[in-house]
Amino acid sequence: MSQHFDICLNAEVLLEQIHSLGEIGLDLQNGGRTRIALSDAEKAGRDRLVQWMRALDLDVRIDRIGNIFGTLRSPSDTGAQAPLMIGSHIDTVANAGALDGCYGVLAGLAVVRALREAGRLPARSITIGAFTNEEGARYQPDMMGSLVYAGGLDVAEALATIGTDGTCLGDELARIGYAGDLEPGAIVPHEYLELHIEQGPILEAENTLIGVVENLQGISWQRVTIQGSANHAGTTPTRLRHDAGYVAAAVVTALRQIACDSNGTTLATVGCMAFEPNLINVIPRKAEFTVDLRDPDEDRLLAAEQGLSAFLRNIAVAEGVQISTERLARFQPVTFDAGLVEAIASSAERLGFSYRRMSSGAGHDAQMIARICPAAMIFVPSRGGISHNPREHTDDDQLIKGVEVLLDVVIRRLASPL
Amino acid sequence: MSQHFDICLNAEVLLEQIHSLGEIGLDLQNGGRTRIALSDAEKAGRDRLVQWMRALDLDVRIDRIGNIFGTLRSPSDTGAQAPLMIGSHIDTVANAGALDGCYGVLAGLAVVRALREAGRLPARSITIGAFTNEEGARYQPDMMGSLVYAGGLDVAEALATIGTDGTCLGDELARIGYAGDLEPGAIVPHEYLELHIEQGPILEAENTLIGVVENLQGISWQRVTIQGSANHAGTTPTRLRHDAGYVAAAVVTALRQIACDSNGTTLATVGCMAFEPNLINVIPRKAEFTVDLRDPDEDRLLAAEQGLSAFLRNIAVAEGVQISTERLARFQPVTFDAGLVEAIASSAERLGFSYRRMSSGAGHDAQMIARICPAAMIFVPSRGGISHNPREHTDDDQLIKGVEVLLDVVIRRLASPL
Repeated sequence: MSQHFDICLNAEVLLEQIHSLGEIGLDLQNGGRTRIALSDAEKAGRDRLVQWMRALDLDVRIDRIGNIFGTLRSPSDTGAQAPLMIGSHIDTVANAGALDGCYGVLAGLAVVRALREAGRLPARSITIGAFTNEEGARYQPDMMGSLVYAGGLDVAEALATIGTDGTCLGDELARIGYAGDLEPGAIVPHEYLELHIEQGPILEAENTLIGVVENLQGISWQRVTIQGSANHAGTTPTRLRHDAGYVAAAVVTALRQIACDSNGTTLATVGCMAFEPNLINVIPRKAEFTVDLRDPDEDRLLAAEQGLSAFLRNIAVAEGVQISTERLARFQPVTFDAGLVEAIASSAERLGFSYRRMSSGAGHDAQMIARICPAAMIFVPSRGGISHNPREHTDDDQLIKGVEVLLDVVIRRLASPL
Repeated sequence: MSQHFDICLNAEVLLEQIHSLGEIGLDLQNGGRTRIALSDAEKAGRDRLVQWMRALDLDVRIDRIGNIFGTLRSPSDTGAQAPLMIGSHIDTVANAGALDGCYGVLAGLAVVRALREAGRLPARSITIGAFTNEEGARYQPDMMGSLVYAGGLDVAEALATIGTDGTCLGDELARIGYAGDLEPGAIVPHEYLELHIEQGPILEAENTLIGVVENLQGISWQRVTIQGSANHAGTTPTRLRHDAGYVAAAVVTALRQIACDSNGTTLATVGCMAFEPNLINVIPRKAEFTVDLRDPDEDRLLAAEQGLSAFLRNIAVAEGVQISTERLARFQPVTFDAGLVEAIASSAERLGFSYRRMSSGAGHDAQMIARICPAAMIFVPSRGGISHNPREHTDDDQLIKGVEVLLDVVIRRLASPL
């Protein structure tokens, strides 16, 4: 289809850039790559991205929270035009795959490259965005760059965030040289598109190529702290224990029950766990862990939160411990723009690709940007549904076809002067 | 009583030394003191102890595993005499009290001091021992110095132990200057006495001053490693998860059930826990934790180990994870020497102190030394049963009376030439 317009995707460069970015931060011992937001490795990834943007002669701007934007100016853009934005992120979790986030950013570059190589300029400027700290691995909340950008979190507050390693986000941002001067949100997009791997098993299981993402589940992140009493493991009768570690374990098993009781709509994960003093023969005086709850339905997400809360109240009394919770992030389910969703479905149809409308299980920058402009997402399959893991994989052919859909949507949205 | 012999306990110096040793390694932020074996803080504690031994003109020797011995020579000792040994340890867990271990070592010095101040020499040499790494906080197994001393662990193997922080025990021992040349076990005691705080609630609950320790429960330490599969917290359906963190939590709750089902004889503790990659939105691919099981009866301890093992087998299949276990320590229950136990009871009786025969819940160096000579222990009350905690406390009056019992036992064992 794109050949109809003499605008062709350069698949070779796209795949080469995905591979090249994926080489940055490789962990040869544990597999995958680790480019935690604002680390040295992530700085190296940013530098590479900016270099590629400049090679395409994009106007590169960095905002105060470190979001990177590269804009291909429309001839009609005198500087005030709302661009079509294509975005995602290039930070990763630890030992990640090469696709989560990076694919969407590099797909944006591929769209711009296709226009450059065809010698065509769009009727509306196109901005490629890479948002800071989407993963939230070190600094919470996740999707921070896009949240700040959409006005959902004050930039000063975000810059003051203290990470799990005790560092201050603003200091780290300055350290790696990405504390820009653009005010977050200064460029309000006309529309926003994000192409992403599914990170779930549905497309592969149904042998479907394209996910047309209509909505996104709600996310609730909390930190739970159990304060018990340290004591000798060999002399303290079970009935006299106030074992913070045991209580933490009981909460984890209760969360599994909450997930099972939901008929599969609620997901519950305890990803971080720490005991104190963490010694083999001392009953833990303290346990701290995170809770990640998700559901596409706000009422069911609330019910899961309330179920957890009730369990915590009861076990605190039963075991004689103090329990406190801290909200780290809370996002309601998001419904994407119907017009954009329809446009994606039409392009997939036109290109002859199998597709289905679906929900996103993961959080994405698109859900934040949806607060300030029409937004939607395109998914391609993840083998085995695996992500946040070195084994994350999507076939090259699927990756290319996903970008073909994106390119087709962009061309048709900006068709007039092409 | 000791005044009958003109041999008087110097309570003031004893309490002052307990206080002074307790000042080394203070943690002003989290409370208590932290003198993990072979750390800089523990070296400072060792230096202080050796200084006090020299001040009493004891013959100080260090063995290859770092055990410290200070001997008051009997006039009849030409160098080959088996001494009466009084011992314990001065290493601590993190944020410990001032009494666990230190009390027993400093009580030994108090006994020697009483003899020195009375100008009396014993019929048999008296050796005060401070054994290396009783707590096992950094290097497993615990009670390592006395275990090596009693021939239960080869010294070369012990020196090659890698700690939880990746350090090698032998390197750390040399670094702090306590890699001695005495062969462990070269001094075989004639008898061994250890005075210790109970670290449990029984004496206080029964308003009894002296615990005459007849036996000691068996201890089983294991490290359990769960290998699951990392995946995205938001997109992986519950039924498809191989969540190492959830499995670890289920094991912790199963261990609580094993303890409860034992009618209180079996104790089960999970003190250490670590998830990988330990990120809020990633299902843990790995969980590693320790299991501390204790029971005064070997058959019941075996049954608890088998119960855990069966649970691990079943849940590995149910959740699709790999589980491996590593034995860190295993000690059968120990019965102390009936003659020494009787002597302790007689001294408590004679001094008019309330006493009871009892089991030790904690492991102690005495259980190792019991392999090579008659051994027994004396307990004093622990307020609230609390130990391995900054709130560990025994009243000064109780501490002094405990040493009076020890002194009386020693004087009567070595009565002839006094």
